[in-house]
Amino acid sequence: MTSFHENMMRRALSLARKGIGKTSPNPVVGCVIVREGVVVGEGWHRKAGTPHAEVHALREAGPLARGADVYVTLEPCSHFGRTPPCADALVAAGVARVFVGMVDPNPTVCGKGITRLEAVGIQVITGVLGKECRLINEPFVKHVSTGLPFLTLKSALTLDGKTATALGDSRWITNDKSRRYVHQLRAEVDAVMVGVGTLLADNPELTVRHVKGKNPLRIIVDSSLKIPNESRVLGDDLARGTIIATTSDDQERIGFLETRGAQVIRCASDKGRVDLRDLMQRLGAKGIQSILLEGGSELAGAALRQGLIDKFILFYAPIVLGGAAGIGLFGGKSVERMGRAFRLETARVRRFGGDVMIEAYPEEACSLD
Amino acid sequence: MTSFHENMMRRALSLARKGIGKTSPNPVVGCVIVREGVVVGEGWHRKAGTPHAEVHALREAGPLARGADVYVTLEPCSHFGRTPPCADALVAAGVARVFVGMVDPNPTVCGKGITRLEAVGIQVITGVLGKECRLINEPFVKHVSTGLPFLTLKSALTLDGKTATALGDSRWITNDKSRRYVHQLRAEVDAVMVGVGTLLADNPELTVRHVKGKNPLRIIVDSSLKIPNESRVLGDDLARGTIIATTSDDQERIGFLETRGAQVIRCASDKGRVDLRDLMQRLGAKGIQSILLEGGSELAGAALRQGLIDKFILFYAPIVLGGAAGIGLFGGKSVERMGRAFRLETARVRRFGGDVMIEAYPEEACSLD
Repeated sequence: MTSFHENMMRRALSLARKGIGKTSPNPVVGCVIVREGVVVGEGWHRKAGTPHAEVHALREAGPLARGADVYVTLEPCSHFGRTPPCADALVAAGVARVFVGMVDPNPTVCGKGITRLEAVGIQVITGVLGKECRLINEPFVKHVSTGLPFLTLKSALTLDGKTATALGDSRWITNDKSRRYVHQLRAEVDAVMVGVGTLLADNPELTVRHVKGKNPLRIIVDSSLKIPNESRVLGDDLARGTIIATTSDDQERIGFLETRGAQVIRCASDKGRVDLRDLMQRLGAKGIQSILLEGGSELAGAALRQGLIDKFILFYAPIVLGGAAGIGLFGGKSVERMGRAFRLETARVRRFGGDVMIEAYPEEACSLD
Repeated sequence: MTSFHENMMRRALSLARKGIGKTSPNPVVGCVIVREGVVVGEGWHRKAGTPHAEVHALREAGPLARGADVYVTLEPCSHFGRTPPCADALVAAGVARVFVGMVDPNPTVCGKGITRLEAVGIQVITGVLGKECRLINEPFVKHVSTGLPFLTLKSALTLDGKTATALGDSRWITNDKSRRYVHQLRAEVDAVMVGVGTLLADNPELTVRHVKGKNPLRIIVDSSLKIPNESRVLGDDLARGTIIATTSDDQERIGFLETRGAQVIRCASDKGRVDLRDLMQRLGAKGIQSILLEGGSELAGAALRQGLIDKFILFYAPIVLGGAAGIGLFGGKSVERMGRAFRLETARVRRFGGDVMIEAYPEEACSLD
């Protein structure tokens, strides 16, 4: 693959990224149209229900699209959804070649767009910057291929690995820059999730405040419905976007919470607690593709041990509690041998002032290819 | 300060760095001599008892030193030690100006070299890249100004903040690249230090094997002399470089250890354990300027809480134990409020493959100036 093609796909990726957090349940997609080495059209998908990236780019290119090369981060669609199929639009425009970042992971459409293009003699080259094109749509890929949401564990730790003191005090570990980035992460996901313990300790809003962006849904895992009525997530302005996952069948309490506007999801029980795999399936079925898990440690430990965590975003702040006491990242049972530890793969390290963010993936899931 | 002067001092710093780990108890020093914009002499201090950086540089410059500018990372000495005073050599060579990185921190010589130069009309400019010039001699600066060794806590942690499983299993957390770098760190210090618990758990050699370099002394903090006879650090080839710090007065045991070749230091007791401040004073008095503290958690916690740690070098490896159990970085009492946590300042972040190294300093000690 020549570097020109990669550069054009990189440009398409940059365009795609502008849609992150705005297109769910659709993937983000970017498209660049090039004729004789000159970019003549660009586009990205902005919002579900609005035109796809290819349509924007074709409009900009106009008649110059004829005989041109198209770079698109995801296989063009071949089906009528809320918009007509992009593959047809590319055929109609008479483009010469289509460079595709990744084939559509949706099992029911996978490859059909490419087949449609090839049927009329358009040359299709797939896998250009394939890994990068997958990474920008991690949640979409996971959800469309498994029905489960993509679960990212986010946490803030001291350098000695504590998320709170023994008294539960966790404010503040990280600095403003890190906290602002966390709000950015919230704005990019469909939902944030916490255990009721975190709610009881901190009474968080779980909203986006430090950056511009939409508030995600709020999922509270609360097996026995301990959530206090005065919780911020049950406030007038927030309750409608709050989902409470429980194993309780206390109809009176459930009725009250629903009256407030919250949704209550009754899940299967796993030794008296919400069965997380069942919950994930239910949330996936509701179209929730991406969840930011913000604690606490019991919930994070259970999710880890059940293999539900797809990504780790951990902030290490330059403070230490200095002793053995304190709450760690995970609750529950640890492995007893280092050789049995859960292995991750470091994807990215980034500084936010004195804080260090480490992004990692479970090792077996690292290679999406 | 123009960037030319800084560039020349940077070159002197690079030269100085070649001496790291080889010059103790002397500081590392680099020197560059420049005449009409051209480097005419360079030198660095290679080993205690051999010529200083300025002498090497003056030799290389020869008659070209007359009227030249000299860049030296540390104030030239003015006293007869094992070599004649460098200030006199610079005067004799007829240099025009001397740019000094940092003034000698030794209270008995501080500023005298500069005074000597200025007395004969040589212009002296101090503080050029002063911070960098201090940083390469952290141990020397600490030791000469306080009598105490510079103590660096080095540890390897999982991303969930564990240094070992609950069973004490700690092999291996980090990867080969990190471990090789740790051996480099060992080669650069006067001594490594561990608690006897670490010795009992891992029976380490505490030597330099994965890189070239001298073995540091080995300090075992062992209040009640639990060290097993078959410990590697008491082996024929290592015992002479092993120091055992204790509060015990078991003369028979002490006699045995001394027969093996080890040094036993009897320290004051702090609730039955070795009083670390007393130990540090005794080690400093022996001329030990730099110590790498490699665990365990009880010793690290005690050193932290007594304010003895000067630097933190922490490796975070992409594995997690996944639960609450396991050994953390520090043993003993934690702070109970986040606002009372020990505050550090992040100095450097570096990746070794998937491992992430974070270097930090205690906040109050960050500004050496």
